[in-house]
This record gives sequence, structure tokens and C-alpha cells, in this order.
Amino acid sequence: MTTTAPASPRSELLQLSPLGDAFHVFDTTLRDGAQREGITYSVADKIAAATLLDELGVGFIEGGWPGAMPKDTEFFARAAAGELKLGSAQLVAFGSTRKAGVRAQDDLQVRALLDSRAPIVTLVAKSDVRHVERALRTTLEENLRMVGDTVAFLVAEGRRVFLDCEHFFDGYRADRDYGLRVAEAAVTAGADVVVMCDTNGGMMPIGLHEVVAQVKERTGFRLGIHCQDDTGCAVANTIAAVQAGATHVQCTANGYGERAGNADLFAVLGNLVVKLGLPVLPPDRLPEMVRVSHALAELANIAPDAHQAYVGSSAFSHKAGLHASAIKVDPELYNHLNPEVVGNDMHILITEMAGRASVELKAKEFGLDLAGLPEVVSKVVDTVKAREAAGWSYEAADASFELLLRDELAAARGEAVTAPFTLESYRVIVERAGNAVQSEATVKVHVGGERVIRTAEGNGPVNALDSALRSALADHLPALDGVELIDYKVRILAGHAGTDSVTRVLVASASTKAAGAPEWTTVGVHTNVVEASWQALVDSLVYALGPTVQSSS
Amino acid sequence: MTTTAPASPRSELLQLSPLGDAFHVFDTTLRDGAQREGITYSVADKIAAATLLDELGVGFIEGGWPGAMPKDTEFFARAAAGELKLGSAQLVAFGSTRKAGVRAQDDLQVRALLDSRAPIVTLVAKSDVRHVERALRTTLEENLRMVGDTVAFLVAEGRRVFLDCEHFFDGYRADRDYGLRVAEAAVTAGADVVVMCDTNGGMMPIGLHEVVAQVKERTGFRLGIHCQDDTGCAVANTIAAVQAGATHVQCTANGYGERAGNADLFAVLGNLVVKLGLPVLPPDRLPEMVRVSHALAELANIAPDAHQAYVGSSAFSHKAGLHASAIKVDPELYNHLNPEVVGNDMHILITEMAGRASVELKAKEFGLDLAGLPEVVSKVVDTVKAREAAGWSYEAADASFELLLRDELAAARGEAVTAPFTLESYRVIVERAGNAVQSEATVKVHVGGERVIRTAEGNGPVNALDSALRSALADHLPALDGVELIDYKVRILAGHAGTDSVTRVLVASASTKAAGAPEWTTVGVHTNVVEASWQALVDSLVYALGPTVQSSS
Repeated sequence: MTTTAPASPRSELLQLSPLGDAFHVFDTTLRDGAQREGITYSVADKIAAATLLDELGVGFIEGGWPGAMPKDTEFFARAAAGELKLGSAQLVAFGSTRKAGVRAQDDLQVRALLDSRAPIVTLVAKSDVRHVERALRTTLEENLRMVGDTVAFLVAEGRRVFLDCEHFFDGYRADRDYGLRVAEAAVTAGADVVVMCDTNGGMMPIGLHEVVAQVKERTGFRLGIHCQDDTGCAVANTIAAVQAGATHVQCTANGYGERAGNADLFAVLGNLVVKLGLPVLPPDRLPEMVRVSHALAELANIAPDAHQAYVGSSAFSHKAGLHASAIKVDPELYNHLNPEVVGNDMHILITEMAGRASVELKAKEFGLDLAGLPEVVSKVVDTVKAREAAGWSYEAADASFELLLRDELAAARGEAVTAPFTLESYRVIVERAGNAVQSEATVKVHVGGERVIRTAEGNGPVNALDSALRSALADHLPALDGVELIDYKVRILAGHAGTDSVTRVLVASASTKAAGAPEWTTVGVHTNVVEASWQALVDSLVYALGPTVQSSS
Repeated sequence: MTTTAPASPRSELLQLSPLGDAFHVFDTTLRDGAQREGITYSVADKIAAATLLDELGVGFIEGGWPGAMPKDTEFFARAAAGELKLGSAQLVAFGSTRKAGVRAQDDLQVRALLDSRAPIVTLVAKSDVRHVERALRTTLEENLRMVGDTVAFLVAEGRRVFLDCEHFFDGYRADRDYGLRVAEAAVTAGADVVVMCDTNGGMMPIGLHEVVAQVKERTGFRLGIHCQDDTGCAVANTIAAVQAGATHVQCTANGYGERAGNADLFAVLGNLVVKLGLPVLPPDRLPEMVRVSHALAELANIAPDAHQAYVGSSAFSHKAGLHASAIKVDPELYNHLNPEVVGNDMHILITEMAGRASVELKAKEFGLDLAGLPEVVSKVVDTVKAREAAGWSYEAADASFELLLRDELAAARGEAVTAPFTLESYRVIVERAGNAVQSEATVKVHVGGERVIRTAEGNGPVNALDSALRSALADHLPALDGVELIDYKVRILAGHAGTDSVTRVLVASASTKAAGAPEWTTVGVHTNVVEASWQALVDSLVYALGPTVQSSS
């Protein structure tokens, strides 16, 4: 199934989800979550994030605001062109109602929503009289027409429409009827869901539950909830709204969002599935939560919160003290649920892969059968644990993990693994004189029985090093010819030590000629960013050469 | 007033708080909060933390478990000896009921509670039948006697006693009467407060509210609440309990605690005072929240969470864009409360979409009035747009933005801005031979009329460069002495160009002596990570020197 189904009749859209349409898990990590200070996703990041969210099994992925943000417009275009392959999730475009005094079909921003080819549109509307009058500066009646017209236009064009009622709860306190009239204008025009937004995040559960229940009773509309975390209650408010009758929850991964953030998708899912017993995810997806949470943190370039509910690496770790011995005997007395249910671990979580079963599964993915080799599995688990404790992360570096597996497997079989090349030394110099900055790298390597020395320049130290290394290897390893470095990420680990911290580098590479996957990622870790990069670069090239070359050259 | 009043009659204790005894803000940062992985307070840290909590105006400070933890025993001894001077807060010792089959007065751990000389004792008791039978391994009746005896003994010795009912909510689900019998045993023996603990943190507000209301109705006892954050609902649960009749809340600063942590004191206080209108702190203490929260994070050696409700440095940050002009006119439409109420600030993030309004607002934050200078605003907007298009990002780099504003303002006024130092050249060398990696940097700068050359080593190129630069400037700019690099972030921009991409570096610095804020962030952008880091380092030091030095040296 492709992402976009622009001309689908609405009845068909309603049946696309394998869980049916009874409950909507609506993710807005890529739209509202991107409002968090410091987050700037590339289009490639967005495609990777949407894929992860789809793997988790969310029903709806709000991808951005086409027409308002050029990068979002590009994301929808590339998604529609087939770059984003979704399983069961549906892609949603966000936008606002038409401008005052303009016909919906003439409003460029509304047209951009159609042009995005997203099958579903979330329209944001003002539902607080003060915002209509003081921020939008139009009349209450014109705002209602803006809502009705825009919904009707999009529905006529085959789109399913959800309405985000901005500042709904503040507005309800000020003038409870007006918000309901906005909702009515949308539903009358064909909107499916009225989403009550606590935009300023000032609500708490008992009060919010009461309002949602009242609105449900007065309107009978299908209600959704969107909470900000300014009182530290976004997750609780979301759950309270469901308990009051809402059947559509808008969340962001890890609670990313403006100010104090949004309702955290993972806590909300854990609470809905485990605590309320609502099957809002496809069966057996809950254990994906930890992996998806951490991978999305990686994409946002934010260190995962170890103490995050359900998915934090410390969410089930006990500091001995009071209960140590009792925990050993009876762990279920001391955890609110079995950590495995959400893909977590009671001990300090090293990684998702640290378990024997995951290593075996992962090996199978690479075509390596470890079923009869328990000692190899143990060795790999130990190595991964030790390395992750030192800052490595294999969650996003499959190629480095595959190399590690291959090495351990060869060692177990008594095969000698010969590296395709070895380093004698490198030197990188970065110089600035006046405003001119120059980088130069020299490598001395042994390859194909020869000692090769090459020097290259680059627009940065890593680029220079990469060029010098490729130049040194080119004659002996022509298979590296098509290999290209396509992404490079740097993460400084351990927040409070400044430049003394450990640096983790992830390098993504691609090749049409490589032996393995067409794209792969490798990792390096060191206090020195240049050395960490070197490690990842070397892994990338060794991986590109494939296992045959690796053990025969 | 001293901390400890060992022989005070209980009636006197009840009147000690200036707010009376009607509502208890009970902090357990130093006891339950210290269960968080990685926290280890020294006794001096504990004294400093208790002083901060007292300044904030909490009523009760649980300092630890004397007799069980040697450091806690020492803390109470030094507090009683006069090292801890509290204003209105009272010190609380935590401990457990007597062991099975031992008289309370013969139980060493109970005696240690007396020896601590703390006027108040929180006793933890099992209130879940499964925990009594499977963890404590005694009979249900003996557990009741353990509670009653221990409370009676401590009360007879002049102590005020609160009872923590461990696993109360899980126990209530399993056998609702037993928890109530435990509470009754304590109250009959003279305990003042029955604290319902969600020890495993599995509750959510609607369900918890119902239980608290039932218990309140069935017993009439004074109830307290203690919540863990395993469902992400600890703050909301605490508030829901108060709404159901609890008048004693146990929290930890910044939500520190085992696993996912405890209910965050600051969010709970913000919600109680601002949202529920309960005067649970002495008047005008709420604006101390931000300072106390950050200082306690410092003592725990944990980076403050920028997105924490109420007190996070980004808790009132808006990525503006669409709403900037509306926010300028009407900030209260976009914040759930005036940030100054809790000692915080509204920040406008300068982003791609920022316009003139955001720049003016931001300048006002820095104490620069651009109201009469439209041409300066235009110049800054143009510069920001051009720079952000090239990869700069000012939303997390206020200090670099302030420098930019100052420069444009000085230029508009015809003032010459003299840099405090200028660079002639730098050279950074990273070498690896065998497995040894070395970094060395040389800088040539002009400062205070002199040309200074310095070379330094580091554990990475940026660290070496930073050291060389500081060494070169130290003699002429002693104000830089206290400046410390506290965080360093690297982001590679433009996802599909590999090491050729542009690198953005953010440097966070801190100083107790700096001219501006105590913490500030600067940005640098270049294809070369070393040069980008250099730019951010230079901005950081120039900012630390303040505007006076900048334009006069």
C-alpha cells in the first residue's frame, strides 16, 4: 500500500486500518513535535521517522504543513512519489482554515493541502472567541464560515477531515457555546473528528474529564484530544479524555513539542493498552515501543530520557536499597507491569539487541544462522553490552553490528578473518589563517601487500580523511568506487562534561555496487571526533567490500 | 529556629508552620528522590538542598533514613548540631515499623529514628497483603501490631508520626479492607497522616481519585499522597488526590526518583497554587521555583530539563512563526500563566519564520529597546534570515543572537565595536599512530595590544583548541577565569551530502562571574567542524566578557 490515495472515496479510507476506525492513534511528532526548540528534521529524517511510526502501528501520521513550510511540501511530494512506503498508517497533512474573505478554493494554503495528495487533512480552527477577535481579527460568524467552507471544500475533493479546535478548553471557560458552534460547523460540513486542543497546556485531568464528558453529551460528535504538557499532565489529560469518551488521541514521540512538550505517545499507548485494556495497536506491536522511541530520539538528535515512563532505559531499574532481595524473588510485586510487554528490561537496559533472542533474530536478518551456536550468541551479547556501556549504539548501525557478528562467527569456526586493509597512521591538520580555513589529511595504510601513503584536502577534517583513505585504497579495492557517504551524524554523549565527553559518530553510506544493502550505517565512538569518524568510515568501507573480500584479500 | 525540637510536645509542632497545619507540602528529594540512578549526595549536598527547599517554603523535608544509611545518620546528627538552619520547614526522618517479633523500643532501627532527633517521623508500613506475606513474610495480624506499636512508641517519645502505606493502591485492588486496617492501626496509635503510596506507579488520575475519595469517606482520616511516575501521571495523580480530599502531598524536586521518578514538586506546587488556587506556599515564594529547581539539579549533578513544566528554561518558549505578532500584542493568549509568577521568562525562539515582531520581543528580553529603530530591526531580520538559510540557528543560541543585536545596534548608533581579541591563525593537528590518538592546537591571537602564541593538547581537536585559546587570553582577560564549557552539540545539516555538509555547533557555557546570564549558548556554522566550533567558542567568550569590555578593550 502506498502512502497517498488522493482520490479514494472516504468510505474506503475508513476501512484502511487493520484495527478499523473505532480508535485513532494519531501521531504528530513530525508536525507539532517539530515545534520543540532545536529540532530540525531533514526530509530524509521525516521519511525515516514516518516509517518507524508505521512499524509501531499508529493509525495516522501527521507529516507537516504543506504550503507553509517548504520542507514539508517536499516531504509530501516525495512521499506521494513513492519514497515513503507505509503499511497500515495513513498520512495526514496539517493546515489552517481559509483566510477571512477568501473562497476556500482560492486560498493558496488550502490548495497546498490538496496538492500534498495526503488522503487526510487536519484543519486547525480558532474555537476561543478571544483568539478569533484578538489574534485572527475577524468576526465570530466569519470564523464559523471559514471552518464550514474549508471542510466542505476538502471533503468534496475526497479528503477525510479532522478539525483541531485550538485553545478549545480556554475558550470553553470563556464562552462555552462558541467552541461547540465551531465544532458543529465542521461536522455539518463533513468533518469526522472534533479534536479538543489544550493548546496552552493549562488543564488538569479532573477538570478536563468533566469538559470532555459535557461536550460528548451535548454534541454526540466523535471527539479527539490534543494536550500540551505545561502542567505536567499531558499524558494524564489524554487518558482522562478517553475515559470521558474521546476516541482519537494526538501525541508526539517522547512528548517532543513546543514549551514543555506534548503528550508522550509511548506513555499514552502504554496506559491505553496495558492499563485501560484498549487494543489500540495491532497485536504484538507494544514491544516495539522502546526501539521506536530510541530511534526517533536519534533522528531528532536528542538524547533519550532514561527516566521516561515505559520506554526509558531506567524505567524498570531498581536502585536496590529497600527491596533488593524481595525483587529477586518476586519481581512482579515491584513493577507496575512486566517490562518485556513494552520491549523494556528490568535491569539497566543496554540495548534492544542485548538479549540472545534479538541477536539470533538479527543474525537471521543478515543471513547468518546462529541457532546451533549458543557460545557465539553469548560472545556477541557480551561484546554489545560492553561496547554500549562505552557509548556505542548498534540500534541505528546495522552494518557495524553485522561486521561484529561476522567476526565472532568466523572466530568460532576457526576461520582467519583478514582485514582488507590496515592502518599504520593518519594525521589531520586544520589550519585557519585570516579567514581561510584548510583541512588536510595524510593516511599510511597497508593494502594488497603494499604500503600506501596518500594526502588529500577536504572541506573539513573528516572529509579530508575520507578522501585520503579512498585515494589510498582505490587501486587495490576497485569495488569501493561506487561507495558514497550520504549522511554523517555526531552525538556528544554525557551531557555535563563539555568537549571532554565521548563522541559517537554515525556514518550512512550508499552504493549501487556494494555487496550488502544499498544503504548502510556504521558507528564509531571515541573522545576524539576525528577518531570516532575514522572508525565509522573504516567500518563503512569494510562492509561495502562484503564478507568474501573481507576474508580472502 | 533550629531544625530539631526533640522534646516538643506535639501540639506545639502543629503550630510551627507559618501557614498552619491545614496543608502539608512534604518534600522527599533527599530520601526517595535519592533513589534515582546516579544520584549520590554528600552530607554537605544534603544540607545545601534542605536549605534551598526551606527557602522555597515547603513545610516538611524528609532528610533520609537514619540508622539504615550511614550518610543519613550523619546528616541528621549534623543538622541537630546546628549545621542546618531552617526557617519554617521541619525536618523528617524516614524509617520502617519495628521488625516482626521484636518490641518497638528494642528495635535498633526504630531507636535510630529517635536518635536522629528529628521532630517528625515517617514510618513506612506494608499495606498490601501480598507484600506482607511474600516480602515481609509475617502474618497480617503481626503486621498490624508492628504498625500500632511503633507509632505508639514514637508518639509517646514526643514525635509526630506520618504513616506511608506502601503499595496502598495495588493492595486496595487485591484486598481493600486490609489497607484500611493498617491505616486504622496507625491512627488509633496516634499517627496524624495516612499517606497512600502508589509505590509501583501504575495508577492513573480518574481511578486514583475514586479510591482516595472512597477511603476519605470510609475513614475520615487525614490522607496524604505519594506517587511514582511509571505511567507518566505522577503529577496528575497527586493533584487528583488533593481534589479527592488529600491534604498532604509527597514530592521530589524535578521528579527525581527510582525508575521513572516521583511526582515533581515544582509542577505539583504550580498546579496547586496557580490552578487550584490553594495557598500552600508562603506568599511570594512561587517565583523562587526556577532558581531552586536549577540549584537542586546542580546539587544532584543532573542537567536541568529545559522542557520541564513551569521551571524549564524552554517552558515558555514559543517557536513563534505564525503567532509572533499575536503574542506580542497579547501574550496571555499564548501562555497558561504569566511566566514571572513562577520566576520564569517567556522566550521567543528566533527561527526561519521569525519576523520583525519576534526580533523586537527578543531584544526586549535582553534589555535592548528597538522600538524607535525600525532600520535596525530590518537589518537584524535580514541577517538572521540569511544566516539561518546558511545553517545558523539562533533559537537555541540566545547569546550569539544578543551579540548580533548589540553589533547592529552599535553600528546604527555609529559606535565602533572593538573585539576583545582577534585571531591571527590557528592550527589543529590530530594524529593516530598505532592505537594512540593525539590532538594538539596552536593559536596566535592579538589581545590587549600583544601578540600571544599558545599551544595546548586535548582529548579531541575542539578541546585542544579551547585550551589553547583560554591559555592565550588568560593573562589579559582574567574575567574569563570562571567560564566553563558545560555542553557541546554538533549537528550535521542537509541530510544528503555526507561529510560535505554544513556543520552546526552549539556551545553551552556557564560562569558565576559572567556579565550576562549564568548560562548561555552560542552557535557556529561551517563546513569544517573545527571552524564551526571555533566560532561558537569565540562567541561564548565574547559574551562572557559583556558589552562594556567588548566595546572598550
